[in-house]
Amino acid sequence: MNSEILHQNLAAQLENIVGRPFVFTDIETRQHYGHDETEDYNFPPAVVVKPGSTEEVSAIMKLATEYKIPIVPIGGRTGLSGGALSIHGGIGLSMERFNKIEIDEKNLQAVVEPCVITQAFREAVAEKGLFYPPDPSSQGSCTIGGNVAENAGGARAVKYGVTKDYVLNLEVVLPNGEVIWTGANTLKNSTGYNLTQLMVGSEGTLGIITKIVMKLLPANTHNILMLVPFFRAEQACEAVAEIFRAGIVPSALEFMERDAIDWTLKYVDGVSLNIKPEVKAHLLIEVDGNYPDVLFSEAEKIMGVLEQFDIDEILFADTEDQKNALWKMRRAVGEAVKSNSVYKEEDTVVPRYELPTLLKGIKSIGDMYGFKSVCYGHAGDGNLHVNIIKGDMSDENWKVEVPKGIREIFELTVSLKGTLSGEHGIGYVQKNFMDIAFNNTQLQLMKGIKQLFDPHNILNPGKVLPDNL
Amino acid sequence: MNSEILHQNLAAQLENIVGRPFVFTDIETRQHYGHDETEDYNFPPAVVVKPGSTEEVSAIMKLATEYKIPIVPIGGRTGLSGGALSIHGGIGLSMERFNKIEIDEKNLQAVVEPCVITQAFREAVAEKGLFYPPDPSSQGSCTIGGNVAENAGGARAVKYGVTKDYVLNLEVVLPNGEVIWTGANTLKNSTGYNLTQLMVGSEGTLGIITKIVMKLLPANTHNILMLVPFFRAEQACEAVAEIFRAGIVPSALEFMERDAIDWTLKYVDGVSLNIKPEVKAHLLIEVDGNYPDVLFSEAEKIMGVLEQFDIDEILFADTEDQKNALWKMRRAVGEAVKSNSVYKEEDTVVPRYELPTLLKGIKSIGDMYGFKSVCYGHAGDGNLHVNIIKGDMSDENWKVEVPKGIREIFELTVSLKGTLSGEHGIGYVQKNFMDIAFNNTQLQLMKGIKQLFDPHNILNPGKVLPDNL
Repeated sequence: MNSEILHQNLAAQLENIVGRPFVFTDIETRQHYGHDETEDYNFPPAVVVKPGSTEEVSAIMKLATEYKIPIVPIGGRTGLSGGALSIHGGIGLSMERFNKIEIDEKNLQAVVEPCVITQAFREAVAEKGLFYPPDPSSQGSCTIGGNVAENAGGARAVKYGVTKDYVLNLEVVLPNGEVIWTGANTLKNSTGYNLTQLMVGSEGTLGIITKIVMKLLPANTHNILMLVPFFRAEQACEAVAEIFRAGIVPSALEFMERDAIDWTLKYVDGVSLNIKPEVKAHLLIEVDGNYPDVLFSEAEKIMGVLEQFDIDEILFADTEDQKNALWKMRRAVGEAVKSNSVYKEEDTVVPRYELPTLLKGIKSIGDMYGFKSVCYGHAGDGNLHVNIIKGDMSDENWKVEVPKGIREIFELTVSLKGTLSGEHGIGYVQKNFMDIAFNNTQLQLMKGIKQLFDPHNILNPGKVLPDNL
Repeated sequence: MNSEILHQNLAAQLENIVGRPFVFTDIETRQHYGHDETEDYNFPPAVVVKPGSTEEVSAIMKLATEYKIPIVPIGGRTGLSGGALSIHGGIGLSMERFNKIEIDEKNLQAVVEPCVITQAFREAVAEKGLFYPPDPSSQGSCTIGGNVAENAGGARAVKYGVTKDYVLNLEVVLPNGEVIWTGANTLKNSTGYNLTQLMVGSEGTLGIITKIVMKLLPANTHNILMLVPFFRAEQACEAVAEIFRAGIVPSALEFMERDAIDWTLKYVDGVSLNIKPEVKAHLLIEVDGNYPDVLFSEAEKIMGVLEQFDIDEILFADTEDQKNALWKMRRAVGEAVKSNSVYKEEDTVVPRYELPTLLKGIKSIGDMYGFKSVCYGHAGDGNLHVNIIKGDMSDENWKVEVPKGIREIFELTVSLKGTLSGEHGIGYVQKNFMDIAFNNTQLQLMKGIKQLFDPHNILNPGKVLPDNL
């Protein structure tokens, strides 16, 4: 059977499962679901299918297993490591009809379907006086299921933890079509191996998540937000560790290099800042809680720490509008930087005190291989996003020299007891750097886990694990 | 080779690895290492060995693999599910020489060896102004490695999370002797499958933990502790969920039935309380932080919630001594209850709002099968310890009827979306109830994980997974 006939036959069988309106083979739809936010890749699936229930996902998985067809779960397509790319064609499983939220106020939990937009979920629980902390910068368009698959973080992770810290239980369809729950809806669980945490961050390679039980917190009522200009970028990194050593746990502690802010101010509307030419970096610092007096006292302590460094005047956001403007700016940094040039983004993470060493190392590696980088990110977690800018570099150098530089950046990261990705995942674009973080023993254990869950390698094949494993 | 000769030969080979002073075959030592705190079981290993380094553990594992000898890691032997029992004899691997702590103040982390006593670790970090929250009731004698193996909780888990929430990275010796790190020393990590969280709670069945990288927090300076007498036990359970719904996250929220307190007051010295005969249960509630005014305000909010229920006068602990006395009492409940009678302890956990239903169900199941139970535990987490008391029940009923009742208790727990164990683990005594929480698909995945890490089933065999799997 040639592939054209195979795909027509496949589409017909998928229509039998989900109904004709939810199966697509036209090239526009396939290309639409063939990209995420990873560089400029587009890998269209052979067919896009939009199931409406766990049972339909199960039937689709059985079909994929029967024909050994690759199947890739697709959410908000905001991923930065290529997790949702159908690199081997096959079935693109768009989960967009999984969009329900059930909030259990009595237990401070919610059952969320995977394609609920993260911001919509955060707003829905906020309406009930509750709080779901993880807030990736893409929260307006990314999905909860994608957040679970990549173990997404965001600005508030420094105080409240990442997605994994909120996932209590998952309904998962295995590649053979069986449906399991990974655990229980409890805050504590010492009952067998932790299948829940194995699924979180597995990037759609072990099973399809169809329901997520999330822990919620009572909402906070107040916060203070300040933007701190530093005359030396490395001092901004040093200040990060000092703030924690002073006994403060801020609810956000974000780092932005000068270029990151400049490019963003040009890119977004409605935000203006008067920044002295000598300023080289900023920290955006938030503290939150229910008692304004406490927050003022914590802000004062933070200012006491910052005074040791060479900083310009601190900007306090006085109104909700000012706070929103600063956050809008911070969230837009990624897009703004990328809109300037062809780019590659790395998601380095180290113990936070090592940040200045990492930043310095990245710059000198860039000098060595001839590339410029713009760095920003969640400095409180030691998580630095490194945007490598092509600018006017030759295609040859971009293809040959830059990957060598990236390898050195990751080697530096690992030597500082850090790793390749803090919150973006490995996916397609970082998989062949996995040997830097893990030796063959560790990688074989991961491969064994993959084979256990997905013996025919149909689920998001060619992701996470290196090609030569 | 008969088993006597085998064991002599084994001991000689172990002496070659660790030195003669660290290998024991005498019956006293073997029996000493043959029990933990699980009922009155004693399963002595054939030989006890006390390695002094990761390299020695690795060599011992290779030997165990070569001869296919069971090997059981042994820590503080305070476990309540029989995880450290050498039920198949073999090598008892006492980790007691692994007792170093390195505190990294710059990164708010520590590298801890597995046999550091939990309280010693908490005190060591407190001296540096830091905070390691997990505090199992046995913290004075349990070990950090055991806490990781069982994913231990304790009273502060309700606000600060359980052991798994602090483990960043683990050095592990695999059954074949290979040594790996499971992750990186970072607060965030989206780099491959989460081997760290797979190891946490795996009860010594996947690998031997030789180093643990723990996250630390800045220390709190103040707390308020109150003991609240309830005239109806179920109302105490109801109050638990209401406190959270009022927006408060206490740092401890402990439940004790009347019998639990009465028996404990008889058992421990230096604690006296004047409790009205009509009082049926207590909640022990703590709030913590750095600002006394905030804590008073939170305590007032809690009192506002409690007023809705039928309670007696609240006792506030005014001094450190009073606080210590109340905590000493709470921590001694388990021992006190057990000192009264032969017992079985269950570690049920449910979403916290379901606690009153669980408590009521346990009592009526007890009535049906003719047993008395004393319940207490970490109510803020929905984690209720159920001590089933033999008292004057016949041996026949104890053996035949009680397990039926336990099965019904677990079925009730699971029907409330809870599970078998919140913090004690499954180990030896609960493994044949695993079919209640998991179907064959889930159990086969767990079995596959076990086979992947430990293909010869030498590491703590006969634990966690049911016998008939």
